[in-house]
Amino acid sequence: MNQFTERKAAWEEKRVSKLLAKAPERQPEFTTSSGIPVERLHTPDAAAEACPQVAGEYLDKLGFPGEYPFTRGVQPTMYRGRFWTMRQYAGFGTAAESNRRYKYLLAQGQTGLSVAFDLPTQIGYDADDPICLGEVGKVGVAISSLADMETLLDGIPLDKVSISMTINAPAAILLAMVIAVARQQGVDSRQLRGTVQNDILKEYIARGTYIFPPAPSMRLITDLFRYCAADVPNWNTISISGYHIREAGSTAVQEVAFTLANGIEYVKAAIDAGLAVDDFGPQLAFFFNSHNNFLEEVAKFRAARRIWAAIMRGRFGAQDPKSWQLRFHTQTAGSTLTAQQPENNIVRVTLQALAAVLGGTQSLHTNSKDEALALPSEAAVEVALRTQQIIAYESGVADTVDPLAGSYAVEHLTDEIERRALAYIERIDAMGGARKAIEAGYIQGEIQDAAYAALRGVESGEQVVVGVNKFQHKQEALPSDLLKIDEAVQAEQIARLRTVRANRDAVKVAGALARIQAAAEDPSAPLMSLFIEAVSVYATLGEICNTLRGVFGEYRP
Amino acid sequence: MNQFTERKAAWEEKRVSKLLAKAPERQPEFTTSSGIPVERLHTPDAAAEACPQVAGEYLDKLGFPGEYPFTRGVQPTMYRGRFWTMRQYAGFGTAAESNRRYKYLLAQGQTGLSVAFDLPTQIGYDADDPICLGEVGKVGVAISSLADMETLLDGIPLDKVSISMTINAPAAILLAMVIAVARQQGVDSRQLRGTVQNDILKEYIARGTYIFPPAPSMRLITDLFRYCAADVPNWNTISISGYHIREAGSTAVQEVAFTLANGIEYVKAAIDAGLAVDDFGPQLAFFFNSHNNFLEEVAKFRAARRIWAAIMRGRFGAQDPKSWQLRFHTQTAGSTLTAQQPENNIVRVTLQALAAVLGGTQSLHTNSKDEALALPSEAAVEVALRTQQIIAYESGVADTVDPLAGSYAVEHLTDEIERRALAYIERIDAMGGARKAIEAGYIQGEIQDAAYAALRGVESGEQVVVGVNKFQHKQEALPSDLLKIDEAVQAEQIARLRTVRANRDAVKVAGALARIQAAAEDPSAPLMSLFIEAVSVYATLGEICNTLRGVFGEYRP
Repeated sequence: MNQFTERKAAWEEKRVSKLLAKAPERQPEFTTSSGIPVERLHTPDAAAEACPQVAGEYLDKLGFPGEYPFTRGVQPTMYRGRFWTMRQYAGFGTAAESNRRYKYLLAQGQTGLSVAFDLPTQIGYDADDPICLGEVGKVGVAISSLADMETLLDGIPLDKVSISMTINAPAAILLAMVIAVARQQGVDSRQLRGTVQNDILKEYIARGTYIFPPAPSMRLITDLFRYCAADVPNWNTISISGYHIREAGSTAVQEVAFTLANGIEYVKAAIDAGLAVDDFGPQLAFFFNSHNNFLEEVAKFRAARRIWAAIMRGRFGAQDPKSWQLRFHTQTAGSTLTAQQPENNIVRVTLQALAAVLGGTQSLHTNSKDEALALPSEAAVEVALRTQQIIAYESGVADTVDPLAGSYAVEHLTDEIERRALAYIERIDAMGGARKAIEAGYIQGEIQDAAYAALRGVESGEQVVVGVNKFQHKQEALPSDLLKIDEAVQAEQIARLRTVRANRDAVKVAGALARIQAAAEDPSAPLMSLFIEAVSVYATLGEICNTLRGVFGEYRP
Repeated sequence: MNQFTERKAAWEEKRVSKLLAKAPERQPEFTTSSGIPVERLHTPDAAAEACPQVAGEYLDKLGFPGEYPFTRGVQPTMYRGRFWTMRQYAGFGTAAESNRRYKYLLAQGQTGLSVAFDLPTQIGYDADDPICLGEVGKVGVAISSLADMETLLDGIPLDKVSISMTINAPAAILLAMVIAVARQQGVDSRQLRGTVQNDILKEYIARGTYIFPPAPSMRLITDLFRYCAADVPNWNTISISGYHIREAGSTAVQEVAFTLANGIEYVKAAIDAGLAVDDFGPQLAFFFNSHNNFLEEVAKFRAARRIWAAIMRGRFGAQDPKSWQLRFHTQTAGSTLTAQQPENNIVRVTLQALAAVLGGTQSLHTNSKDEALALPSEAAVEVALRTQQIIAYESGVADTVDPLAGSYAVEHLTDEIERRALAYIERIDAMGGARKAIEAGYIQGEIQDAAYAALRGVESGEQVVVGVNKFQHKQEALPSDLLKIDEAVQAEQIARLRTVRANRDAVKVAGALARIQAAAEDPSAPLMSLFIEAVSVYATLGEICNTLRGVFGEYRP
């Protein structure tokens, strides 16, 4: 028995058998349409036994799923155990409307929620703030106080359904609201599962919904890490996001490099704040884009896992294998969708979703065909969800782990993406890390250059976009079933907010806000429990953020 | 330099450079979104140099594209040279209506035609035969005489556009009509490119549009081979079809095995009729299904190429490498489409089309989302064609040859499909070949067993069909834009036919039919040129087929 055979046997015994004892696979056996058995994991057994080089390279670069360097996936049985979480990002209008959409999605077979917030909520203003005019409930749901969060999560059992929230600058306050609702439901915070995006660095780089300057922003993030490590251990405390970096026009390599560079910055900040890497490392999550270039995308996810494992183990000395694992959510690339010939988008989303699954994503949002035109309609969201279900239940690709492993093309691309992303990370290290590189405009500049090159490719016709610069259609009518947000939403939300303010205990609110202000002024004071206290007495999002603005100031690029 | 390196260098020099001198690739260079160069062919260079086992297995099983055993494709540069032919199967109503649809498809970027005939035409009856009532123009276009073919191909330059015709029992007569139209257009028959399906064995097995018993049917086929070898050398004289075998419920392994067994039978028949294998071998084409199980389908196409190459070289002693090449058309699996939630079919077709492209198909039909409900509407056909264009122009998978080669899972499935298909072929050989195995009901029985098992899987819910036995929708309305065939088509076609009969030279027609009858009675007489003579004086399809029925008799299963 050589090293490869030994390691494979050890993996079978230690990882697989142990896992199967706890959690059987979806089926007792997996076969193709022809009755050919589909193995859990295909490996180059004969070649590895015959050639030490093959064995060595396999063990170094790929290894076994659920083991360092996790190239082949973070769990030993991957989707043979259970499918990825099908999680459609949704939210619009009032909390009550969004709650109805979530219940519809869960009834259609979706397996997790993903909350989109409107812009006022994302930048920490109440719906009646004059700055919000025309934006309330537009790109997501409006949440001004705990009363809205109660409505949003009404009838959704927080011990069973995981909640992902695309919220960054005020992430801690929204999470405080979820914790408060869980208390009302009688759910222990240790049972809560979900994610806050909480990734401020990519807001400075690409997305723009920041509030505070970098230093206090990083403090809020590490404060949340610390609180969750102790009290909400199954919550993903951050979703370090390449999605928006890619949507801003980066390449696949840049998406990996800049996302992991941001990840390094967060880990450093948390360690500097006195946290132990293995206390928060396992709850770091990632969020990637799945774009058009099919093979490159599959390779990208595999490369990202391998790089992060080495960083966490090598650079930060993490000991817990869970700290080494890059777990990620994926969304198909909104920027590739076209307003022209909207059904073509179903094709694009299918290809991108398949790449994410072949790349081993933990959860997936598939875009709706009409997203280049409007918020997704219920019918379009259903097709998007069905896309995931067809890949899961009909295509068979979930029946073996990391099915493209060994492909000469995919392994080559995986190596190249790793090599090129590491070169970027080295350059950013030399600049003093991601925060410094962002402040110097370096990361933004690199993305702009890539975006400009891509745009020129489309304009010159070198990059074909079907239905846009080739195969155009005669004049097209807009689809008739687009979702429109009722203009009454803002008035409704303001009325609701005023009722909340009128009925709460104003003294308690003032006390809670005063304690937040005092703590904010002391850089070493914890904040998270004060946020929970404040939202529980119905202090509003805007009030809490304004209190923090008074101490932290606001970021101006 | 070891054997692998030598062979790869020889391939570069002999195949690639030679081809590039004649036909440059689509782009001067191919890169991913990140600017990573995409190689023409990824191979296991380092491992093959270090390990003789790896080199040996690679050269034996995979080799280089454009070289024996063609596992990696039949051309050295595959889709870097040009994309597969995008060929949507279409035809309905009258010749004039179908002609309009073809011109629409060509305007939308389709690159070849594929003609669907109605049932009367497929079984050799004129539109006014009482047996045809209610079927004229239903599942395809009605072609009763050369006049219809003239209309069907009006304005379509036969020296530029290749024509594929799904016609079997009367294939020779329809091809004779195309040759006659080409003469009218002034196009040399040596320039004609296209395909007749002409595969009668699978009609007995699965599809049912036969006319004559096996012996005269095989004679018609070999007669066509002989004629084309001399006069229409670029025409694919047969499209040996697994498609309908799969649609009838076979497994992927059975699809390969039974199709290649039929292929063996045709080659034997042609050799028995005195043809030299290298005179007709290069013009044999194949037609496969692309079904749901993604990895198995990719592997299936690769295995089929490897098996056929060995059969033609080993068993039949073909010397011309073109005789070894399995070239194939693919259609996505109609039987997987659902009437429920028709947009889900866009997802299925996308996955199946991607599998066909990753499997190296030469041409592709993508089904339309509404085909489980009706003939495809123009809008639905457009989305189906766009599906191919997005895979070709946006996904990047066409930029490297055989991108999944080396994948442990895909290579394992390729080997297993080969092994299991060869076992079937051995069994059929032992029964005396495909024709005997069909007459004994063996092949039909194997397919029925597989179809029954698949049906039980769906009924028990073990095999999920999204939207059908899981994730069903509330009551669904039928889409409003289904294509309906006008009931007036039959009357119109009959009137047209009677005009043809009234205006032709009856004496010439009678003479041509008499010569066909005399030749049919002599088993060694050639027929094809007599068919051309007969159709050119407007003898109808039904008249010619009835003349042959009088001599050959009809097949009764």
